[in-house]
Amino acid sequence: MPSISNKGQAMPESPIRKLVPYAEAAIKKGRNIYQLNIGQPDIKTPAKALAAVKDNAIEVLSYSHSAGFESYRNKLSQYYRNHNIDVAPDELIITTGGSEALLFTMGSICDAGDEVIIPEPFYANYNGFATSSGVKVVPVKSKIEEGFALPPISEFEKLITEKTKAILICNPGNPTGYLYTKEEIDQLAEIVKKHDLFIVADEVYREFAYDGAKHYSIMSVPGIEQNAIMIDSVSKRYSMCGARIGCMASKNKEVMSTAMKFAQARLSPPTFAQIASEAALDTPQDYFEEVIQEYTSRRNLLVEGLEQIPGVKVAKPKGAFYCIAELPVKDAEDFAKWLLESFELNNETVMVAPAAGFYSTPNTGLNQVRIAYVLKKENLEKALEILKAALKEYKG
Amino acid sequence: MPSISNKGQAMPESPIRKLVPYAEAAIKKGRNIYQLNIGQPDIKTPAKALAAVKDNAIEVLSYSHSAGFESYRNKLSQYYRNHNIDVAPDELIITTGGSEALLFTMGSICDAGDEVIIPEPFYANYNGFATSSGVKVVPVKSKIEEGFALPPISEFEKLITEKTKAILICNPGNPTGYLYTKEEIDQLAEIVKKHDLFIVADEVYREFAYDGAKHYSIMSVPGIEQNAIMIDSVSKRYSMCGARIGCMASKNKEVMSTAMKFAQARLSPPTFAQIASEAALDTPQDYFEEVIQEYTSRRNLLVEGLEQIPGVKVAKPKGAFYCIAELPVKDAEDFAKWLLESFELNNETVMVAPAAGFYSTPNTGLNQVRIAYVLKKENLEKALEILKAALKEYKG
Repeated sequence: MPSISNKGQAMPESPIRKLVPYAEAAIKKGRNIYQLNIGQPDIKTPAKALAAVKDNAIEVLSYSHSAGFESYRNKLSQYYRNHNIDVAPDELIITTGGSEALLFTMGSICDAGDEVIIPEPFYANYNGFATSSGVKVVPVKSKIEEGFALPPISEFEKLITEKTKAILICNPGNPTGYLYTKEEIDQLAEIVKKHDLFIVADEVYREFAYDGAKHYSIMSVPGIEQNAIMIDSVSKRYSMCGARIGCMASKNKEVMSTAMKFAQARLSPPTFAQIASEAALDTPQDYFEEVIQEYTSRRNLLVEGLEQIPGVKVAKPKGAFYCIAELPVKDAEDFAKWLLESFELNNETVMVAPAAGFYSTPNTGLNQVRIAYVLKKENLEKALEILKAALKEYKG
Repeated sequence: MPSISNKGQAMPESPIRKLVPYAEAAIKKGRNIYQLNIGQPDIKTPAKALAAVKDNAIEVLSYSHSAGFESYRNKLSQYYRNHNIDVAPDELIITTGGSEALLFTMGSICDAGDEVIIPEPFYANYNGFATSSGVKVVPVKSKIEEGFALPPISEFEKLITEKTKAILICNPGNPTGYLYTKEEIDQLAEIVKKHDLFIVADEVYREFAYDGAKHYSIMSVPGIEQNAIMIDSVSKRYSMCGARIGCMASKNKEVMSTAMKFAQARLSPPTFAQIASEAALDTPQDYFEEVIQEYTSRRNLLVEGLEQIPGVKVAKPKGAFYCIAELPVKDAEDFAKWLLESFELNNETVMVAPAAGFYSTPNTGLNQVRIAYVLKKENLEKALEILKAALKEYKG
């Protein structure tokens, strides 16, 4: 029997999928599960986006431009300009989700063995994209005690080697909910300029900034136009995770023309989803205001609820819709399994994502979980109740 | 300025896109171009597939299963069984086009520096997927004089090294239109078994077999269940290139569970396109009969027309909708450019794909072009007329 690749063996399993078999078994037992483990919002997709797909007049569903519809790129460029991000249509490539944008970016700037520095905890799939690109992730630790703020720049500098090609950030952060300040972004800009590195910013949660805080894009920093690469996606912004539309943006022409070769090899991004994404750009501002209000109150409910559980520590998120909570347990993965296998309150339980999979450093975050506040408040309340009762009962 | 990767620099430009700037310039001059360079069929997408998307009742466009809708995989498995291909739903991963299936396959079975043997000329984007996966393509030459039949197995054996992980075929072939016989497939099966290699078969043109010939799938060969990996796509079958839905299939559990890790990292294939693809499986048989009849008559018209042009040699395709034609020119790329830049007949011209980009061996196929017979017969006739007149006038 021919053997699979070392790369394939090294591909990490997604930490949010790891417990799925336990959840399936619990569901079979008739248990209701509050899924706080995945970032699948329950928010409705904007009506205009869905209507555009229903109203399509396609007779031959043909390839689109490899960089995506020109009409979509034009409108998307305007959306960015409205957000103080100066990106021209030809500085954009529409991708199949933010995932593909990350793959194109890594392929364009990294060779096998090259290193990318990422503040941890980070979006777990960065590990997968890095592994499949042959790239080594070099973590720099951010701390729950500091609300997961940017680690000191000196910590980054210690890690820079000849192999370092980029610093990758997620802003606002999944799984931390941390929103970088202008000062932090400026510090990052300075260091990438000094060391001639790329700065890749995953800004898919741009709209999800709370308490009046403003998102500050890496694309808005003067002087690092040749270093900055932005990753984006419609998945969270418009609750359109299933569309699989994202984009990659940069003013660095060499990067974009290289990424374009990857884009051409896979022909084009999905057509129906581009129609939906283009129409989604007409979503009225009050949609976002409602959504932000909803997430703010969900976050407040969740964070206040968690803080009231003895032994639980949480960094109040300023953006996105996740938080990392430290639990009074030794092994959060064991606890998360136990929640699904052995615990119930009125035949209901909770599914959380063990946070260790969001760290690259071994044996880190073992007592932490990621919680997504993507459920209605009444369900979050029940989930908190269950979590509280479970932590009381659990003897891990 | 930070520099792009060696891999990015090595990414080949698509040979079918190379001439696009020349075509755009010609269009600006008001010229009408018959596009024989790309495999974008003008055939209508089945009504059921389009209707299903219009009839969707989605309110929250959420992620699907990373392996694709279960309902779709069930139905697709039945489709394969109807084609004598025994593939269970859990032996399938739905991908974003055949492109992603190829990337998952290469990632799962090859490490950087590993080799894949491919009969050339081959689908040019195999080069792109290989480069982005760090894989070395080792070509084995098939010849126009032999209609692009499978090269002798001894030629394959000469090329097998410690690094060889797989043989990759496209059946029926793009760009050759060659349909492998049962005997040829059995020979391939024997050699991969003997040398413990994978056999990856891109079977996206399965339905497009002419003159009563039957497609024989690599998945139907007994004894190589652990070696065989099938790549498929809805793009050509249902004229749904813009859907971006394909799949990867294998009975090798290790391969599929590895590919699943790549699938999970990118979350899910596009939802609207899966709805269309699932509904497309209900396309009545007469749709295909009409399509095959249409392509058969287009092929006949094209091949007979080409044979009547002095100095043109063509291998009559038995499947797909391409042929490779040898032209009485030294440099087919120069001729193809000249067609767009300097030639016109009643203000019309023809766009063809220089075939050199479909070969991996340097300086091969220089006097060949790939012609896709995806246009209506009246347009093919005009294109032939233009080609004939152009070859008379051209002094390359």
